[in-house]
Amino acid sequence: MYKAKELRHLLDIEINSLSNSIVSKPIELYEPIQYTLQLGGKRIRPVLVLLGCEMFGGNVKHAVPAALGIELFHNFTLLHDDIMDNAPLRRGKETVHEKWNSNIAILSGDTMFVKACQQFLLANTTNTKQVLDCFFQTAVEVCEGQQLDMNFETQSHVKIDDYIEMIRLKTAVLLGGALKIGAYIGNASEENANWIYHFGMHIGIAFQLQDDILDVFGDAEKVGKQVGGDIISNKKTFLLLKAIELCNAEQSKELNNWINKKEFNAKEKVTSVTNIYNELNVRELAEQEMNNHFEIALNYLKLVNVSTENKYELDRLAHKLMEREY
Amino acid sequence: MYKAKELRHLLDIEINSLSNSIVSKPIELYEPIQYTLQLGGKRIRPVLVLLGCEMFGGNVKHAVPAALGIELFHNFTLLHDDIMDNAPLRRGKETVHEKWNSNIAILSGDTMFVKACQQFLLANTTNTKQVLDCFFQTAVEVCEGQQLDMNFETQSHVKIDDYIEMIRLKTAVLLGGALKIGAYIGNASEENANWIYHFGMHIGIAFQLQDDILDVFGDAEKVGKQVGGDIISNKKTFLLLKAIELCNAEQSKELNNWINKKEFNAKEKVTSVTNIYNELNVRELAEQEMNNHFEIALNYLKLVNVSTENKYELDRLAHKLMEREY
Repeated sequence: MYKAKELRHLLDIEINSLSNSIVSKPIELYEPIQYTLQLGGKRIRPVLVLLGCEMFGGNVKHAVPAALGIELFHNFTLLHDDIMDNAPLRRGKETVHEKWNSNIAILSGDTMFVKACQQFLLANTTNTKQVLDCFFQTAVEVCEGQQLDMNFETQSHVKIDDYIEMIRLKTAVLLGGALKIGAYIGNASEENANWIYHFGMHIGIAFQLQDDILDVFGDAEKVGKQVGGDIISNKKTFLLLKAIELCNAEQSKELNNWINKKEFNAKEKVTSVTNIYNELNVRELAEQEMNNHFEIALNYLKLVNVSTENKYELDRLAHKLMEREY
Repeated sequence: MYKAKELRHLLDIEINSLSNSIVSKPIELYEPIQYTLQLGGKRIRPVLVLLGCEMFGGNVKHAVPAALGIELFHNFTLLHDDIMDNAPLRRGKETVHEKWNSNIAILSGDTMFVKACQQFLLANTTNTKQVLDCFFQTAVEVCEGQQLDMNFETQSHVKIDDYIEMIRLKTAVLLGGALKIGAYIGNASEENANWIYHFGMHIGIAFQLQDDILDVFGDAEKVGKQVGGDIISNKKTFLLLKAIELCNAEQSKELNNWINKKEFNAKEKVTSVTNIYNELNVRELAEQEMNNHFEIALNYLKLVNVSTENKYELDRLAHKLMEREY
């Protein structure tokens, strides 16, 4: 069995090789794809494809193209999301629509998606249909999640349940799908493939809730981004939605005041809103929700009918993902 | 054997049924897909899928999902192209990015593309891998064609050969791909599938050249759009590129004068540029090029190893496509 770290290393080499071989004519179309792939990232999703395959006794090499397909797809969604969110930076570098322009970002994104699809046809498996069914279903759901996220921006009331459903679609199903695709390539039974999918999905929800918490309560250096970014941009996270649900009249007034202010001192806004979060204990409530999904995930992992040894790397990776420093 | 007209009728029903069943939550994502599908169009590409299947003795019903996939894909490309070209109208109605906004157009386009992919998995065929290989290859080429087309806008010199390559990628390969996919579903041999692909591709090039000619020399009522639109927007068509290639110093000066003018009387510009085209006989040269590709196409059709009877509908449709009134 390979360790997650070894699989990550294997994937770094494969992604690098892919990003160098992908450039073709017209270069305006392919350079942004290469650029995006070389921005790096934790490569969690393709590692999950390989781990999903390996735990059922499959040969990880057979799952490499599908892993690359998942990483290409994930990067395609980032590329298009960055246009929609008008984001200037991605992993500390200019986004494609900033470095080139929106048209190039739209079209190179489209191409990247097709290139993702092509990878799945290269997988050495008799389960290509199941793999593609799962991939396309997941891809549709990720689009639905992004649309819900955009809808929330202009929606005055967002329920916590709707928020969880949004992050399930936008973020979590891709972790589940990555594992399930790997499982199919490893010839897992349909039942086992479903358990591992649900494990990945709940890990994904927990992971996103952790992201919400870290954005406010994380250590800027360890998290690698500005603390309070979500508060500054009024992003409707679990914390904000829970605060809106629980706040008294006075807290509500203060919260709305900060949300509606057009000009403000960023540090002051972050401190004030964080104080309200602290008064309402929303961090603990978010952690409860996160731990709840983490527990559900681990229970699904228990249901998977393979040896504890074969589950070890995945179990370890899930715990490591949940241990990002606050 | 079904007639093309009957297949078109069958597809109208299927597309209507698909466009009604596709709407799901979030509706912001799916309404634009329904809207786009209901804008109509000649449905040439999905008809080609069915004809490609039928000519090899396949059951056209087995090819319907793939035909819908091709139509969904084609409409997805129009949706994204309209954002990139900043087009206000499509088939006389507001484009999606105008009616909704660019973000919705990007994301509903992405979703439409995934929905297209899903259709190909529904086809009743043992050749799914070949079908998908052909579809993805075609999709990449269509993106490349669109990028070349955008590149040409800011390129001072565009060679005729590069222009033909651009329309081959942007327009023609999808006609070839549609036929080839149908052929695979009809269990054609690889050789026959390739001949029919090349037939479709050259028909596609001829068809686009005819479009260039009709835009200038067509009857506005019969063509259904403003005459001279390409001249007004300085679109680098076969006619303009040929005129630039052949013009003398005086004609070159006048042509460049019109191209560079920021303010002008549209009718005057169309008349003056058309006069230069007439002086240089570029219409005849474009027709020669068009007929040349049409002949090449018919020769490929001859190579397809099925009875003349089985080729009849496709041969007839190709001739009808070439007979649009000037």
